[in-house]
Amino acid sequence: MRRIIYPGTFDPIHNGHINIAIRASKLFDELVFVVAENSEKTPLFSAAKRVKMIEECTNNYKNIRAVQYSGLIIEFAKECDAIAVIRGLRQVSDFEFEFQMAMMNYHLHPELTSLFMMPDEKYIHLNSTVVKDVAKHNGDISSYVPENVKKYLLSKNFN
Amino acid sequence: MRRIIYPGTFDPIHNGHINIAIRASKLFDELVFVVAENSEKTPLFSAAKRVKMIEECTNNYKNIRAVQYSGLIIEFAKECDAIAVIRGLRQVSDFEFEFQMAMMNYHLHPELTSLFMMPDEKYIHLNSTVVKDVAKHNGDISSYVPENVKKYLLSKNFN
Amino acid sequence: MRRIIYPGTFDPIHNGHINIAIRASKLFDELVFVVAENSEKTPLFSAAKRVKMIEECTNNYKNIRAVQYSGLIIEFAKECDAIAVIRGLRQVSDFEFEFQMAMMNYHLHPELTSLFMMPDEKYIHLNSTVVKDVAKHNGDISSYVPENVKKYLLSKNFN
Amino acid sequence: MRRIIYPGTFDPIHNGHINIAIRASKLFDELVFVVAENSEKTPLFSAAKRVKMIEECTNNYKNIRAVQYSGLIIEFAKECDAIAVIRGLRQVSDFEFEFQMAMMNYHLHPELTSLFMMPDEKYIHLNSTVVKDVAKHNGDISSYVPENVKKYLLSKNFN
Amino acid sequence: MRRIIYPGTFDPIHNGHINIAIRASKLFDELVFVVAENSEKTPLFSAAKRVKMIEECTNNYKNIRAVQYSGLIIEFAKECDAIAVIRGLRQVSDFEFEFQMAMMNYHLHPELTSLFMMPDEKYIHLNSTVVKDVAKHNGDISSYVPENVKKYLLSKNFN
Amino acid sequence: MRRIIYPGTFDPIHNGHINIAIRASKLFDELVFVVAENSEKTPLFSAAKRVKMIEECTNNYKNIRAVQYSGLIIEFAKECDAIAVIRGLRQVSDFEFEFQMAMMNYHLHPELTSLFMMPDEKYIHLNSTVVKDVAKHNGDISSYVPENVKKYLLSKNFN
Repeated sequence: MRRIIYPGTFDPIHNGHINIAIRASKLFDELVFVVAENSEKTPLFSAAKRVKMIEECTNNYKNIRAVQYSGLIIEFAKECDAIAVIRGLRQVSDFEFEFQMAMMNYHLHPELTSLFMMPDEKYIHLNSTVVKDVAKHNGDISSYVPENVKKYLLSKNFN
Repeated sequence: MRRIIYPGTFDPIHNGHINIAIRASKLFDELVFVVAENSEKTPLFSAAKRVKMIEECTNNYKNIRAVQYSGLIIEFAKECDAIAVIRGLRQVSDFEFEFQMAMMNYHLHPELTSLFMMPDEKYIHLNSTVVKDVAKHNGDISSYVPENVKKYLLSKNFN
Repeated sequence: MRRIIYPGTFDPIHNGHINIAIRASKLFDELVFVVAENSEKTPLFSAAKRVKMIEECTNNYKNIRAVQYSGLIIEFAKECDAIAVIRGLRQVSDFEFEFQMAMMNYHLHPELTSLFMMPDEKYIHLNSTVVKDVAKHNGDISSYVPENVKKYLLSKNFN
Repeated sequence: MRRIIYPGTFDPIHNGHINIAIRASKLFDELVFVVAENSEKTPLFSAAKRVKMIEECTNNYKNIRAVQYSGLIIEFAKECDAIAVIRGLRQVSDFEFEFQMAMMNYHLHPELTSLFMMPDEKYIHLNSTVVKDVAKHNGDISSYVPENVKKYLLSKNFN
Repeated sequence: MRRIIYPGTFDPIHNGHINIAIRASKLFDELVFVVAENSEKTPLFSAAKRVKMIEECTNNYKNIRAVQYSGLIIEFAKECDAIAVIRGLRQVSDFEFEFQMAMMNYHLHPELTSLFMMPDEKYIHLNSTVVKDVAKHNGDISSYVPENVKKYLLSKNFN
Repeated sequence: MRRIIYPGTFDPIHNGHINIAIRASKLFDELVFVVAENSEKTPLFSAAKRVKMIEECTNNYKNIRAVQYSGLIIEFAKECDAIAVIRGLRQVSDFEFEFQMAMMNYHLHPELTSLFMMPDEKYIHLNSTVVKDVAKHNGDISSYVPENVKKYLLSKNFN
């Protein structure tokens, strides 16, 4: 069983995340989204709701699942016996942050390999902050997030 | 059978490459080094010699092998039924070149996924050009390349 | 009538902004500063005051004006029939953020073109945060902002 | 008459260039491609052929034309009374080179403004070197260059 | 007397800082850590405690000392007659921020030279935020900070 | 005696180099320009001529001198007992190359510290290649190089 984990805040999941997850899930036996409970900034959606959104939009993929977690990602990797962490890279600033995290994780748990993927180019400009900003100003987000996420976003009262 | 390919010039292979290859080979069933025959710049070693050096220093790893190839990397991937390409990322300039190549390969053959890894930090300053430059000026390269590669480098008459 | 817009927080406007605006205004019929009302971080000056500062220091340029706005910039562009957005680029981190915004705006409103300019090199180290920081510690800001902005900054009680 | 120039090697022109040129041409009265005769590296196509390819694929746009030139770009700008130079930015490494050129041009001829645009994201991975490399290995270049350029590329004997 | 200053937040000091400070202190007669009192974000440790931690772990180096300061760094440099500021550079994003600060300081006080050093590669992934994050989740920080700092971190109640 | 070295190709020296050298020379007892004999690309001027140009334009500075050298820079540092290498940083791409060189030199000779400086902002767009290019096309280089270098450049027949 080769399991990989895909950690992040996913507040909310968008089409760039989904593109990465589906492609990565085909290379391994199982992919587990690990939703960070305790992000620095206050998330728009609770961790439980963020897990639910992921589950809803990936339920056609039998080897993808999602959990929430509050500790160091390497601890979760040990618990579930994951062999790799997958992360998306869109641009240089991603790269530097990811590089630093990958180095730190490698120090703390050398058996866990960090792998990076680039999303389909139609998603390289996407991130959750921009999606929320467009939704807040009533812009059209249909091509950025799946239907269920769009529904949750529109039901939010941003003020 | 999950096979990945690791393309490059490898002129010559150094410890950063080996670090990436060994860690990646543990995540899949087979890793194939694909040595580019027709690099732009004239290589120091012939493609056959570069393959030989890789074989010698990875022969303890039964699921690692090396071949030479002269076409588009996606064609080789199709021929050998590889599911992913692995590439090392050391710094921002790597990232941009790799990004462009990954996008192009994704267009030409969407079933092939580009995966990126960062080498152990003790190798992030290493590249083949620097290794050759230090060897040429009689600097000590023992910690940068395996024994067999060091021998081949020292036997070169650089002038 | 070829109108372009120059959106930003301008908290406060400094000589780098003015350099960009004047040069851009010569290429088109009208340039409109669009001052963001609802920046994430609390601004030092109100949007109305920021508009006033811009008006005061550009009032010799008959085809430059300033407004405040709270929605998506592409909506303002539609309302005022602008053909392009102008933005300054000083460094790599600017570039990546701007790239992402330009892509998103292009998706939402393809008729609006994002144009980028680099300020005169004597302003590449300037940004509003640094200006406020120097002012707060009583450093000399005469070469960073116009006279009127300097006056407003000095009248602020930073504590 | 507001004329802008779009300098480059264009060896050959590809869809990313065309995307930039068409969008920029709508903002001004005329856009002139300025094809560099004396690039450092030997081009695949002669300057005259590169101009011809541009003319063929932009001949539906009445305010776009192409010339070849061998001097400093600022001299050409003075000769034809251009008010701005347009350049595409795809990634960080583009940015730094362009920044340096823009600063130098600004020193030598302050009346000429450098403007930068980002191509449609489906072209951000494109450059002429990659296009030639794919063509050389018989990969499919239909989505990267217009029909006429594809024909010229296929008629080349790369060996 | 050639004195240099090493400004920062140092919340807390880690092995990367110490590596820079020791190497820099050998090139000059005295190195003074300048601990910023009024950082934007609330620090974990008071300025006095941060000074104390630095003093404890550098007390074998007779030409290194530490002070706290709340004004512009160039003012402190003038007061203590320092000839240079030393700063560590680990990655591109450091570089851009430092570049901007160095330019601003050069404008305000041209006699003060900004010098940059890269830490030993085993510390390039280290920063104080990551150290605190690992400590908070009970990860092992022994190789990132000196013994005294580890003790202070473990005595903190992070919740 | 605290001696530092400033290695490079200096083909030819320009005002950015001179700005760095003068400021660095004030921090130490002696600064030695180390002119690389065997650059990859064929230089415009011989190493001896490049040394001569440096000597001519720095002869007012009694603690600056210049030599030519063909080996590894760390070997020269050992020979002349230098404590540090100084290098200029203008932009991100400089940074990455310099980072790699600094790491390699640190490995080969840990007692030699690499120090980096940013030139006065009016020189950040300058490099020797651009200077030669402008000179070749008869552009005005008076503000980029000292008088003696200008004279040597104008006496060159570039074709």
